[in-house]
Amino acid sequence: MKAFVTVNLKAGVLDPQGKAIGHALNNLGFDGVTNVRAGKVFELDLATSDAVLARTQAEEMARKLLANTVIESFKVEIAA
Amino acid sequence: MKAFVTVNLKAGVLDPQGKAIGHALNNLGFDGVTNVRAGKVFELDLATSDAVLARTQAEEMARKLLANTVIESFKVEIAA
Repeated sequence: MKAFVTVNLKAGVLDPQGKAIGHALNNLGFDGVTNVRAGKVFELDLATSDAVLARTQAEEMARKLLANTVIESFKVEIAA
Repeated sequence: MKAFVTVNLKAGVLDPQGKAIGHALNNLGFDGVTNVRAGKVFELDLATSDAVLARTQAEEMARKLLANTVIESFKVEIAA
């Protein structure tokens, strides 16, 4: 079963990578872009076929390794 | 209006970052993790309030800057 963990900087935390991408898009002529935030997504293949267990495991992994919860928030989605 | 562009390595392209994360998770005791793929997600704030236009713009941005379409695929989602 697949789990998708999306990790983003918390609101209020400066995102220089996102800012740079935003400027680059503006310079390419995409004037309608007002703000960009860059994040990460991890696609995990899990041995379990129990969706509830998969979610619990993925959240634990996010807290322990995938996200720095001081400055980042994460979201877990489970797919079949 | 917000657009989320998710960029992932295409199937078949080696993902050393994902491999390293997978090993790290196994070493932390998460034995059920069989494979990890690491990707990026960009949250774009767009000036337009037209969802169709927002999608077209975001796809154009992905092709021109956000994704390297030789080795990466992307997916665009639009949120209000």
